[in-house]
Amino acid sequence: MPDPLDNFYRQFQLFVQNNPNVISAARAAAQIPESAKAVVVLSPYSLEHSFSRDWVSKSYLKTIVERPERLLASSLGISAAITMYPALYTLKSSDRKKSSILSPHVLKVHGKDWPPELLRLCKGADAKLAAQEVEVPDSWNAGDIYLSSKTVEALQGSIGALETAIDSIFEGPSVEHVSNRAFVAVRPPGHHCHVATPSGFCLLNNAHVSIEYAKDRFGVTHAAILDFDLHHGDGTQDICWKRAGFRPDEEDEDSPGYDSFGKKFADLPRVGYFSMHDINSFPTESGYATKENVKNASTCIMDAHDVNIWNVHLSPWETEEEFARLYHTKYRSLFAKADEFFKQGKIEMAAQNKPFKGLVVISAGFDASEFEQTSMQRHGMNVPTSFYTTFTKDALRLAQMHCHGKVLSIMEGGYSDKAITSGVFAHLIGLQNQNWIKEWGSEHVVKEIVRGCKSNWKPYKTKRARDVIRIWAEEVIKLGRAMIPGFEMFFQDIPLNVKATATNIAPRFTRSRAQTTKGPSHEPPLATLDPSKEAAPRHRRIEGTGVTQEPVPFAQEELPSDDNEDEDYVYDEELNKTFNRTVEDITIDDISRHLETLDIIEQQPPPAPATQSKYKVPSKTTTQHLRSSVRPQQLANSNTHANLNGNAEDSDISMVSHISTRNHTTRSGARW
Amino acid sequence: MPDPLDNFYRQFQLFVQNNPNVISAARAAAQIPESAKAVVVLSPYSLEHSFSRDWVSKSYLKTIVERPERLLASSLGISAAITMYPALYTLKSSDRKKSSILSPHVLKVHGKDWPPELLRLCKGADAKLAAQEVEVPDSWNAGDIYLSSKTVEALQGSIGALETAIDSIFEGPSVEHVSNRAFVAVRPPGHHCHVATPSGFCLLNNAHVSIEYAKDRFGVTHAAILDFDLHHGDGTQDICWKRAGFRPDEEDEDSPGYDSFGKKFADLPRVGYFSMHDINSFPTESGYATKENVKNASTCIMDAHDVNIWNVHLSPWETEEEFARLYHTKYRSLFAKADEFFKQGKIEMAAQNKPFKGLVVISAGFDASEFEQTSMQRHGMNVPTSFYTTFTKDALRLAQMHCHGKVLSIMEGGYSDKAITSGVFAHLIGLQNQNWIKEWGSEHVVKEIVRGCKSNWKPYKTKRARDVIRIWAEEVIKLGRAMIPGFEMFFQDIPLNVKATATNIAPRFTRSRAQTTKGPSHEPPLATLDPSKEAAPRHRRIEGTGVTQEPVPFAQEELPSDDNEDEDYVYDEELNKTFNRTVEDITIDDISRHLETLDIIEQQPPPAPATQSKYKVPSKTTTQHLRSSVRPQQLANSNTHANLNGNAEDSDISMVSHISTRNHTTRSGARW
Repeated sequence: MPDPLDNFYRQFQLFVQNNPNVISAARAAAQIPESAKAVVVLSPYSLEHSFSRDWVSKSYLKTIVERPERLLASSLGISAAITMYPALYTLKSSDRKKSSILSPHVLKVHGKDWPPELLRLCKGADAKLAAQEVEVPDSWNAGDIYLSSKTVEALQGSIGALETAIDSIFEGPSVEHVSNRAFVAVRPPGHHCHVATPSGFCLLNNAHVSIEYAKDRFGVTHAAILDFDLHHGDGTQDICWKRAGFRPDEEDEDSPGYDSFGKKFADLPRVGYFSMHDINSFPTESGYATKENVKNASTCIMDAHDVNIWNVHLSPWETEEEFARLYHTKYRSLFAKADEFFKQGKIEMAAQNKPFKGLVVISAGFDASEFEQTSMQRHGMNVPTSFYTTFTKDALRLAQMHCHGKVLSIMEGGYSDKAITSGVFAHLIGLQNQNWIKEWGSEHVVKEIVRGCKSNWKPYKTKRARDVIRIWAEEVIKLGRAMIPGFEMFFQDIPLNVKATATNIAPRFTRSRAQTTKGPSHEPPLATLDPSKEAAPRHRRIEGTGVTQEPVPFAQEELPSDDNEDEDYVYDEELNKTFNRTVEDITIDDISRHLETLDIIEQQPPPAPATQSKYKVPSKTTTQHLRSSVRPQQLANSNTHANLNGNAEDSDISMVSHISTRNHTTRSGARW
Repeated sequence: MPDPLDNFYRQFQLFVQNNPNVISAARAAAQIPESAKAVVVLSPYSLEHSFSRDWVSKSYLKTIVERPERLLASSLGISAAITMYPALYTLKSSDRKKSSILSPHVLKVHGKDWPPELLRLCKGADAKLAAQEVEVPDSWNAGDIYLSSKTVEALQGSIGALETAIDSIFEGPSVEHVSNRAFVAVRPPGHHCHVATPSGFCLLNNAHVSIEYAKDRFGVTHAAILDFDLHHGDGTQDICWKRAGFRPDEEDEDSPGYDSFGKKFADLPRVGYFSMHDINSFPTESGYATKENVKNASTCIMDAHDVNIWNVHLSPWETEEEFARLYHTKYRSLFAKADEFFKQGKIEMAAQNKPFKGLVVISAGFDASEFEQTSMQRHGMNVPTSFYTTFTKDALRLAQMHCHGKVLSIMEGGYSDKAITSGVFAHLIGLQNQNWIKEWGSEHVVKEIVRGCKSNWKPYKTKRARDVIRIWAEEVIKLGRAMIPGFEMFFQDIPLNVKATATNIAPRFTRSRAQTTKGPSHEPPLATLDPSKEAAPRHRRIEGTGVTQEPVPFAQEELPSDDNEDEDYVYDEELNKTFNRTVEDITIDDISRHLETLDIIEQQPPPAPATQSKYKVPSKTTTQHLRSSVRPQQLANSNTHANLNGNAEDSDISMVSHISTRNHTTRSGARW
């Protein structure tokens, strides 16, 4: 089986060759222990889940914003971060791991009914779709939930990727072999999924499933979920109520085990939920919100009734100063509350003489981005791209204080390519505690990168040598597109097996409300289908079905049409100059700065002796062992905090190491 | 018809004679315009509502903490404030005003069904009670709701008193004739009463009824309810949701006028709700709270979906510094939110070219007091007595900024005599923007005052001249007991008409849970009755029924048994000395300090020209017109802000004025 990252590694070698100033960083990579790197887990199976009602109108299709193409946008964000700090990320592809939807950690979160029901519906979906019937039950919102038999693979792959990430941050032959931070680029998202009710594109609650796995496998007792998606994570919050012992809304009133107030004892792990979101967007879209939904999205309670939930609503802002004030006075309070949660958890565990083990989980949705498409941002509640760095760095600080630095970040929403790419970029920069450079988030730079999200992307025919941004952006695009081989296949319009023509498909579905215009409106983004109205027939490639139609257009409403036109290009001298400088600065200084800042944020020593967040720049001799794959005996002394074992795959250590391996047949970097 | 305050005025004259240093204050009273005084509205009818199931056990009876005697405790608090600032309060008795439970402002708040149903139940209660049946429907919590035919009078009197207070702060021949601040001592309380569901002692929502009246009569468009009762005002909050256009929980799902999300347009007045409470007490008592109740008590939402609700939970504290930090970082945020609410309201009204008129309403419950009985304070979440001054002064500041200084305060909970007396005292000091002197809230001082809450109170036989606290406390007690003549009757064990014996009443009721111990427990204060268990027979005087039994014992669990024993008295030299000094200081300086502080808090000029909060010390000639009863023509120029008319009763102006009237046949104070 070929390494799914082979393409990427090849592309990365070319990148290094094209950019000699990266060499010093790649060289230094060998000096950096795995514990100082962030793992990025790719989930190729996530491509498999796609909207397959191929009889709907093109305009209806456009409302299906949760699409496989989002993964490519996130890949471009990941590659952008990698080009800036090539030594600081370890890329892993979770292409070999599928985990069952009926895994114990899934069943514990979602109960014994929902996961098998989901499986059954997915398995029956294809037949329904072929018969041009809606594949989801009537009681669901068919406008935001879709299924196919392939959805099962996507979900199995997601669970596997989440497990891979948790394993990566908790498991290794020594603390220095274990990354503390991981970002998982999966879809469909999870935070709207309740105990037994899918909602808002979400079929399983990825955050809670990950936490349950981390509890089962590594004894995590307390997790704080920080959610910066534009939308309230109502499902995640509901499952927190369930964990607190309250009967889920989906359960019968006479379900056993609850007292007459609908509660039983709370179990470990304790999970706090801390969210910032727009109170006028789904599931509390203005004009479409119920009292119950609004209350849920506005709940603020700490350390009472076994519940820790804090919801903050986004406010409008004009200037950067205004946003900074909002951040520091309002949004940042989420960290104060999460800090309270962990502190109280430590006290309670200590009182029971039990070990405390914390984890910070980020529900990383990028739809609050200033770059999100207007249909999603109709209420104008957004955050600057730099927010994703700032917030993430605060999350690291929280994790340093209470969780030995452990942070798991999971992709949630974010629908325009620009929002996802720039958001993931800034988020990953934050996940390595680096500073965001404003120019990286400029309209011009983002526009250049997201060109690579188009199926028919081609490099510019002509580039001027001084045109740093274009040159850099094309490197990013090449790296990002090489990251998930599935994407290339997905884009290649390969012949499929199923035969269907456009004209013989009866019109069936359209939006329940005709309004599909951009800009502020009262239409909820996830309106229900009205199965009785006209709709233009629509062509949809379905993998393995032989349809040879046009590829699915992206819902890239924000992309100007001139993106591919070389001649329209206006050279931005000033931005290029600044950008050039920042890129050079970074590739020279990155590693020392990185180590420095990580030292600074160590504000409070963890209660158990732990070395992974306190290392010094290791010399070649002392770090030699980090590059030997299995020496657990010699590492026994540093194996102090928990759950370390010998089964870490050294081959995963980082893509820079891979490069050096491939070029020099050694991972020591000595020959650089 | 004799003036119901005659007794009080006589007592006040004695007080002045006994305390020559009060004379200067009384003299200065004539100089102070009514607009600088706070109105205190007494509601004698509130005595009529009493628990009348006279067959229940004594221990059950003890759990009925919402009892007529609470009014006496509040009267002692009122008189304590009056002794400190005799010139600054206008006492009014609302003994001549009963307003219908079917008044438009009641029906608008509670719908067309609940008020007549309440009337019907009250009218049918006596027959049920006589038959030893529970007088409230089975679906209600009979442990916290009780009725009798007399309840109707209490409610009619309450509504009348609330109207009197609103009239007092909005109506007068000129702005200088109109008080800006009023405290209404009514019971039963109101903040747990929903649109059509009584709860937690509450039968009608006094705060909302007042606001509706203020809207109908004086055009109030925006009201902020600040609620510092220990318990969440779930009813008040629910009615805010109703005002925002959301269908009340009590209404059928198919009730007309709502969209499919259960909402219609929001109407004026807009009402924001800002509450601090214990999240582990009723209606979210730990172990007895539903998920829905907890969500309600933890809702925080501003300016979205037509809702403005902010709930803050009480935290424990040890030192005064800790409490000060809690207050400034947490509880005080209620004012920031209420400020946001008013600011946004002004913007919205201006945009529609409509007048804005604001009102601050305080739901003044005193059960969070450090002096509340332990059964109510089982979770130990309390506030120091000084809090009631501090919070109230902040409320004045808010009202100065947005509401021309208009503040209506309504008594809610508070169950031990000590909590009510000290809380009302501190609250009224705050309502006149004065400083609270720590010694006033000392255990010793409060203990001396609440002696006067006992039915068999007698002055000490011996008093030493230097014993300032005892001397002062007895003045307070005499004034307070003289305030509501009904109380004297209530205490005099006069023969009644109905005949019943203790022994022939079958035991019927007890608490559903046996636990009636003090201290932290999981028992909700308002548990339901279990109508099948044993209970000791219990004697209960029912007015007009001829029962000649012992008077009802108070639920004064906190009162030490040695309160009446002269010989147990330990003279506290130090406290007496301090207290003496503070009393002297105050009666000399009060008026100038008062005017000074009111000037300071004028932070933002009201948008409409208004003079009532910007006056200077008036000279005798310029204030002469204030003491003439009807000169509206000459006052036309100052009658600038709204709703002033000529029907104010000048005779209400202040009890100090009354004193001077009675002694000197002139209200000018010139002969003092």
